[in-house]
Amino acid sequence: MLTYLSEKKSQIKDLLGSFLSPLRQDASRINAWGPDSLDRLQEYLYRGKMIRGALVSFGHEMCGGMKTPQALQIGAAMELFQAAFLIHDDIMDRDLFRRGKPSIHAQYRDLLKSRFETSINPQLDHLADSLGICVGDVALFLAFELLGSIDASLSILQSLLKLFTRELLYVGFAQMEDVYYGGIEDSPEEEQILSLYKYKTGRYTFSLPLMAGGILAEAPASILNTLSYLGERMGILFQLKDDELGLFGDTEELGKPIGSDVISDKKTLYRYYLFQTVKGEDRKQVEELFGAAYLQKEDLLFLRSLVKETKVHERIGGLMDQMEQDARNIIQQLDVDPIWKERLLELVEYNRNRVK
Amino acid sequence: MLTYLSEKKSQIKDLLGSFLSPLRQDASRINAWGPDSLDRLQEYLYRGKMIRGALVSFGHEMCGGMKTPQALQIGAAMELFQAAFLIHDDIMDRDLFRRGKPSIHAQYRDLLKSRFETSINPQLDHLADSLGICVGDVALFLAFELLGSIDASLSILQSLLKLFTRELLYVGFAQMEDVYYGGIEDSPEEEQILSLYKYKTGRYTFSLPLMAGGILAEAPASILNTLSYLGERMGILFQLKDDELGLFGDTEELGKPIGSDVISDKKTLYRYYLFQTVKGEDRKQVEELFGAAYLQKEDLLFLRSLVKETKVHERIGGLMDQMEQDARNIIQQLDVDPIWKERLLELVEYNRNRVK
Repeated sequence: MLTYLSEKKSQIKDLLGSFLSPLRQDASRINAWGPDSLDRLQEYLYRGKMIRGALVSFGHEMCGGMKTPQALQIGAAMELFQAAFLIHDDIMDRDLFRRGKPSIHAQYRDLLKSRFETSINPQLDHLADSLGICVGDVALFLAFELLGSIDASLSILQSLLKLFTRELLYVGFAQMEDVYYGGIEDSPEEEQILSLYKYKTGRYTFSLPLMAGGILAEAPASILNTLSYLGERMGILFQLKDDELGLFGDTEELGKPIGSDVISDKKTLYRYYLFQTVKGEDRKQVEELFGAAYLQKEDLLFLRSLVKETKVHERIGGLMDQMEQDARNIIQQLDVDPIWKERLLELVEYNRNRVK
Repeated sequence: MLTYLSEKKSQIKDLLGSFLSPLRQDASRINAWGPDSLDRLQEYLYRGKMIRGALVSFGHEMCGGMKTPQALQIGAAMELFQAAFLIHDDIMDRDLFRRGKPSIHAQYRDLLKSRFETSINPQLDHLADSLGICVGDVALFLAFELLGSIDASLSILQSLLKLFTRELLYVGFAQMEDVYYGGIEDSPEEEQILSLYKYKTGRYTFSLPLMAGGILAEAPASILNTLSYLGERMGILFQLKDDELGLFGDTEELGKPIGSDVISDKKTLYRYYLFQTVKGEDRKQVEELFGAAYLQKEDLLFLRSLVKETKVHERIGGLMDQMEQDARNIIQQLDVDPIWKERLLELVEYNRNRVK
């Protein structure tokens, strides 16, 4: 499965490269920001894992589809959507690192600071954020251009456009809730958190690309529905793992600073359970750490041991077990060739055990 | 012409209403932000002049098209794109008013301030900006859903998607330059300013909707090219008028505070010529006013009399004359029914003489 995904990644990279190259010339007619932002975008895209993009091809081939180039093109569009969301999210969450390097608005901060030979300056920071918002929008337009120009029937194209626009709309709403609770002290309830994981990560990361591939293959509604539900389970598992890595993962592997979820006071399920459980002295310390300006290594070690002591780690592990089991059951019932079931199971395995 | 535009506006309003209403139910499954943001978006859309949306129908009927509902649907999508850009632009330009009421991110500031009973707070302001970025994205997804679901042939749909994604991409690049020069002291050169006016306003506000209507009517390439060029001339005229109104217009008519271009140090052609011309004591005062925290009534009166004394006002008037004349010449050569030429000439007239 990992070989399959990385092969698709390399094909999507090629496609993105051929798409963006001729655009540079065109963009330079407008102004210098055009080609510059396309360069940054391409470099940014190339550093992604491209799992979402590869899953379009996966869903397509699994459903017996033969439209290989079209699936890759939709996958490339998927990666551009993902880039757009990450670029905007990083501005909202004030995350200066992404994929092992400065995030897009952080790159513009660096550029402006060196151009005007100045250090911290709220005016220039705001300008850098603004340039980042624009590049996110640019990525969205490029994504829709790629998606809209696939060689397919009218009915397939319109089904795809409806699928993408509707799921992306839901991601937008989910992101509002996510950013809201990231900016205030209150936490959403368990149910709200799981709904967020479902719409922001689950349906978007797994259901959407798998279903897009299925639609391109003209798969029956029954299979599309199963893929939709399977994606939700896999996605919630993926997000829970993401939260775990945010606390237990390795900085270098992840390409972003550890504890950034804690610093930005992200209302993860870990945090929710921890705040439900911890009392007394520890509670005070926990409250200080979530939303703190920075974390020391020992703060992180304290939080790590606390989630274990309080069985919060175990409880979330149990939830991951459940999502994993659900996903395995759905896969067993899927009416596709056994080789694809095997690969889906490997993907579940990967989601459960990944280290970055 | 104005009757025609306002009739189309009312039809586009109806269409937007029927599109957004059933979505509310759907959005409320996700969270409370969904229906809330759709309400705000609808109210925001309804307050627009909807010239761009109406111009799609105009271009369509002018080219002999009979697809009335489809033209309105593309017009509604056009208004959603416009809303998305305005929402993001107001965050970048820190404009708290739009269309006579608080801009979207300003509405979220008010909501958060009343919910948490607090006054100015950079953390909540950032959160309000973030919610605004999301609503802009949501508007983009809704726009593409409307555009992607029109009842038309594959070839028309793909031509429309290509036209929109490419022109919106150029707007994104132009916006980067605009926001950059809005955030620093330097001004772009005359040529760069006019290029900005061409891509951010001209092609986007006039060429794009007129051509979209033409494509829907399957107009020949020769007419589409003429509309493209006509739109640029009309758009540059429109933008120069916008700059003029920013200095000479009436606050109540415009629905935004006068002098906001001066406060945000927007690098208009007025500013460029003024800085080229004014020397001595006046120069010092001009430099202080552009980018000042606020403007007094007498500051504005000073600037108004200065652009007249220095003939900057006259010079820009001359440029508007030229754009107007170009547009009139192109209209005379257009191969369409005289009634449409008459209306186009009225539109040029309106662009030249509007007060809001």
